[in-house]
Amino acid sequence: MNRSLDAIFRPKSVAVVGASRRIGSIGGEILAKLLEAGFEGAVYPVNRHTSYLHSMKCYPSVRAIPDPVDLAMIVVPRDHVLGVVEECRRKKVRGVVVITAGFREAGEVGARLEEKLREKVRGAGMRMIGPNCMGVINTDPAVRLNATFAASAPTRGRAGFMSQSGALGEIILANARHINLGISMFASVGNKADISGNDLIEYWENDPSTGVILMYLESFGNPRKFTTIAQRVTRRKPIIAVKSGRTEAGARAAFSHTGALAGGDVASSTLFDQCGVLRVNTIEEMFTLATAFTSQPLPRGNRMALLTNAGGPAIMATDAAVTLGLTLAPLEEKTRRILRKKLPPECSVANPVDLIASADADRYAVGLKALLADATVDGLMVLFVAPTMINSREVAKTVVRYSRRSRKPVLTCFMGKDRGAEGVQTLRSHSIPVYSFPEESAQAMAAMHRYRLIRERKRGRVIRFRVNRRKVATVMSRVRKGKRLQLSLQESQDVLAAYGFPQPPGRIVTGAAAAIGASLEMGYPVVLKAVLPEISHKTEAGGVQVDLRNGDEVGKAYQEMARRLKQRSLPVLVQKMVRGGREVILGSFQDRQFGTLLMFGLGGVFVEAMKDVTFRVHPITDREAREMITSLRGYALLSGFRGEKGVSEKVLEEMLLRLSQLLADFPEIEQVDINPFIAGSARGDSFAVDARISLSAR
Amino acid sequence: MNRSLDAIFRPKSVAVVGASRRIGSIGGEILAKLLEAGFEGAVYPVNRHTSYLHSMKCYPSVRAIPDPVDLAMIVVPRDHVLGVVEECRRKKVRGVVVITAGFREAGEVGARLEEKLREKVRGAGMRMIGPNCMGVINTDPAVRLNATFAASAPTRGRAGFMSQSGALGEIILANARHINLGISMFASVGNKADISGNDLIEYWENDPSTGVILMYLESFGNPRKFTTIAQRVTRRKPIIAVKSGRTEAGARAAFSHTGALAGGDVASSTLFDQCGVLRVNTIEEMFTLATAFTSQPLPRGNRMALLTNAGGPAIMATDAAVTLGLTLAPLEEKTRRILRKKLPPECSVANPVDLIASADADRYAVGLKALLADATVDGLMVLFVAPTMINSREVAKTVVRYSRRSRKPVLTCFMGKDRGAEGVQTLRSHSIPVYSFPEESAQAMAAMHRYRLIRERKRGRVIRFRVNRRKVATVMSRVRKGKRLQLSLQESQDVLAAYGFPQPPGRIVTGAAAAIGASLEMGYPVVLKAVLPEISHKTEAGGVQVDLRNGDEVGKAYQEMARRLKQRSLPVLVQKMVRGGREVILGSFQDRQFGTLLMFGLGGVFVEAMKDVTFRVHPITDREAREMITSLRGYALLSGFRGEKGVSEKVLEEMLLRLSQLLADFPEIEQVDINPFIAGSARGDSFAVDARISLSAR
Repeated sequence: MNRSLDAIFRPKSVAVVGASRRIGSIGGEILAKLLEAGFEGAVYPVNRHTSYLHSMKCYPSVRAIPDPVDLAMIVVPRDHVLGVVEECRRKKVRGVVVITAGFREAGEVGARLEEKLREKVRGAGMRMIGPNCMGVINTDPAVRLNATFAASAPTRGRAGFMSQSGALGEIILANARHINLGISMFASVGNKADISGNDLIEYWENDPSTGVILMYLESFGNPRKFTTIAQRVTRRKPIIAVKSGRTEAGARAAFSHTGALAGGDVASSTLFDQCGVLRVNTIEEMFTLATAFTSQPLPRGNRMALLTNAGGPAIMATDAAVTLGLTLAPLEEKTRRILRKKLPPECSVANPVDLIASADADRYAVGLKALLADATVDGLMVLFVAPTMINSREVAKTVVRYSRRSRKPVLTCFMGKDRGAEGVQTLRSHSIPVYSFPEESAQAMAAMHRYRLIRERKRGRVIRFRVNRRKVATVMSRVRKGKRLQLSLQESQDVLAAYGFPQPPGRIVTGAAAAIGASLEMGYPVVLKAVLPEISHKTEAGGVQVDLRNGDEVGKAYQEMARRLKQRSLPVLVQKMVRGGREVILGSFQDRQFGTLLMFGLGGVFVEAMKDVTFRVHPITDREAREMITSLRGYALLSGFRGEKGVSEKVLEEMLLRLSQLLADFPEIEQVDINPFIAGSARGDSFAVDARISLSAR
Repeated sequence: MNRSLDAIFRPKSVAVVGASRRIGSIGGEILAKLLEAGFEGAVYPVNRHTSYLHSMKCYPSVRAIPDPVDLAMIVVPRDHVLGVVEECRRKKVRGVVVITAGFREAGEVGARLEEKLREKVRGAGMRMIGPNCMGVINTDPAVRLNATFAASAPTRGRAGFMSQSGALGEIILANARHINLGISMFASVGNKADISGNDLIEYWENDPSTGVILMYLESFGNPRKFTTIAQRVTRRKPIIAVKSGRTEAGARAAFSHTGALAGGDVASSTLFDQCGVLRVNTIEEMFTLATAFTSQPLPRGNRMALLTNAGGPAIMATDAAVTLGLTLAPLEEKTRRILRKKLPPECSVANPVDLIASADADRYAVGLKALLADATVDGLMVLFVAPTMINSREVAKTVVRYSRRSRKPVLTCFMGKDRGAEGVQTLRSHSIPVYSFPEESAQAMAAMHRYRLIRERKRGRVIRFRVNRRKVATVMSRVRKGKRLQLSLQESQDVLAAYGFPQPPGRIVTGAAAAIGASLEMGYPVVLKAVLPEISHKTEAGGVQVDLRNGDEVGKAYQEMARRLKQRSLPVLVQKMVRGGREVILGSFQDRQFGTLLMFGLGGVFVEAMKDVTFRVHPITDREAREMITSLRGYALLSGFRGEKGVSEKVLEEMLLRLSQLLADFPEIEQVDINPFIAGSARGDSFAVDARISLSAR
């Protein structure tokens, strides 16, 4: 655990620099919240214009405080911040939270100031949250720190919450309070000039009071570090993240907001997936999940039981659950027998079990007991529409009782705001997740199931093959020397060959006669491809002729191609024609924020139009390579479809791993495009038919 | 307007048969709600066991009531219902609402009873809601009818609400109350033995107080009638529907709940689309939309402006809006100039316009005025995260003021439960839609834009071509006589030919010599296809050989095929080989609930694996045929992709219309499968290459 963050989250004393008596002013609010929360330590207001505040002695400066200060909350105007931090350094303050805005988010002057601020803080060995943030909270009863100006104070609980937006922080705290979601610690990180989301994840990783980590992100500071940390942490604790700026317009809005460049959204999603982070699209969904994760055990599988007193909501819950990958538990014969015996005949004892509107707490008890004892049930959703004459509080109490005895997750949905309200309160006060709509319980249960799978999945291994690295190094240095970024066709082929990619026999020649000669050598039929660096889509430009069966056809094809491309001595690749197999695409590109991404997809124009591709952030393990293949929408086309034999997935997996190795060894590679790769039934009939490799300008 | 429903919704007097003094009993609740709502007319409790109730005289029977009775609420045990209805008939009651359950939803005995009930009601010229429902509401101040046992009573407003589930009705009323969504009329329709959803839509179509129709459905009673009515009504008023039972498991749950068979979900979605009904998946989303539709004008286009005081929520709103098909308005130069001049320099004057946290009502006024006046803005979303020192009520009032002056829709999102609450209340009381999360405002705005397009779209025309109907009738009668359901290949070809589908030259022959002879006649290359009714996937069974270029190849192919299929004198179709074009699929099938559905999709194994198909409920118009083509995910493959020429969409449209005509003329057709149809660049190179037609057993 990074103890340096204790200066922020577990201070023994706090100075509020810029405290004010103005009601509603930020300095005043922070001071008031600190006192309201009953901070276990001393609070020192600092304000040079007054000598007391809230009946507390007020100091003209941090250095004027006679006792040691652990944490300084800084709320002074921007141009005074550096001076205050300097004072803090001299006072040996260990942590600062800079609330003040006007730094990087406000343009260049601010950005330069922020850089100085960071240098000063780091030089002094201090830690800093912010600038441009709304503060931090630690609900630990031994600390009781609420150093924010948010309207709502959270209750104690198991969620660690980090927000890159102050406004979202405000919303998050308000909602948490409203639905009684307990918080362990909270941080609005602002511009993240020192302490980043990564730091917080690591801090919370080892904090026993934090069971779930929640994040609102607009940008990634260091995606590679995030990957390493998140991959480790998600094996112990779920991380649920909202990453906004998903669309291009949203990313532009995010940039104008924070000045932080967003990476492509495909890259963020891919990264989250690989790290086991549960990405949600809305704050609302984040709460839906958090409520379940902080209080319920994970389901062992995806088979759900539904217990209800009304048909409609149960149908809607079923729809949502099934859509999200859950199934309805078949129920044991024994369970049905018990239910049939103990419930009125109008009740439905198939799953969903419908107790009908007259169901009271006793009838719910019958259902709860039987379904939680059923071995085919991995999790239970309890739906209740408060009818007249039924005491919702008693029903809720019954749910609490049975849920406590069980190791299976129990989520509830109590509907009908008026009559159900007492039941909702009972459930909330006992930390049983209770939702307003059936879809939410399905969403939460599905996410718990998904997290269970994430936690159990094997990381896989990064595999290294024997390759001819030196050969590639020679090619690269030649390209660099030629001040080129684009490798020639021959160079690309050499690189792939050196890294063990099978390629069909082929030779680059110039002139019709040479083309015919080369064809004879390798045997018909052959393919002729124009070698011209600037043709990216050779086929469209008429630079490809396939299935040439004899010398005449080759000669004629060469002449036509040379004429079409207006180049008399056109260099062409004569390649033995590959028959059968499936066209796929392997490739890589650089994301400006996430680094190298690997890509795999089905090829051919049909599928290109469908954009059926998967991505992974480099480097990948064997498991990830496999997932890239199996997670294609059209995977059936590789595994075998309508009686056709499938392709060798083993070979494809190997090719992806070899590509990953190439990218690891030569980070200067900007882009690889192996298109098509013909996937055959074995290594012997699989070929990288065409390839383009380019280097980055940096 | 169907005046017969006035007996239910605008009665002058109501009898409650089964009224009870037991607190919480359904009869007691209904009586209490009627009185609470201040029904404008006389209420007569009927209960043979008591002589007064709530200080009102109680009658032993309906007939004992001395004055006329318009509406009878029936809450007696199931086996007394028919008797009470008979009494009502004699008393000349015009409408009944049967709350009592235990009818069709409870099994066969109940179903028979329900049938009798319906007959009696219809025979008497009465109208009935239910059985198995929770009642009806009309908030018209001239009526004030609340004849339900729901906990919450709605306020007056413009939404007509129909629920097939009583429990959902309860939830709907509770939520409507909670968010101040006003209701014009409400009906829980239960088993729909007499009055159906269709009747209600028609009733509300002409009710000036109803501006939006909301429906919770589990099944369609009469989909064809629904189509006709909904197509007409959605041109005047939006219909927003939740249809549950979307998944197979959900449909099973729905069946066990109501006994009503659900059609396939593809069919429901298709039907809704065609009728212009806005389908949503959850009740929550229905409310999100209803709030906007009942109070705001429709946007003229999809260009939105966002006005905010915080970056994070604006990014999330942008993400959601763009994902749902809206765009951010570019803003006029003038607008930017005004904003730049009147707002502090820290504010962002690009869209989203960020007023930053210090924004008060005056600053919001600047933004509202400028953005609503901007010609590039079709709609406005106002986001507000209540900060300290800002009066949310004043901000809300400003929004109300400017919204009233504008003809553009204004949706708001006030966040932060505590400080924002007063603003939320102000907005609600002035019927300005206010949401808790930015995504909801985007959802509502996108739906309003979509509805605008729906209302403006042309219905299109059902087109009839000159065809040889008699020829097909002859084929059909021959098939029927042969007691077959499956048409032979020859018959299928004849049918298609008679309806103007171009087919490649071809002839069915037996024996290698005949095959060679036929090939010679039509010219090489040819295709050989085995003619065997039981081979559905000929290709897999080895019953197809393509690209045969001479007599030798044809002869050899014939012999091999005959051997493989173990039939010495195998009949084969010799067909001229079609080159080029795109493979597509045209077809139709019967949905058990919705009748005939037309299908169109891209063909070939690649695309079949992707399941890229569209559906429409028969019959289709020319516009719908066109939409079937353009709404494919892989539409680019038809319209032209990577420099390749597109196919003739006109021809495809014609083929779909011809297919629709065939299905209209011969409703006995169970299934048509034209696969592949080769779509060429004109009629001359487009061909129905293979087809299967079968008839229904009924």
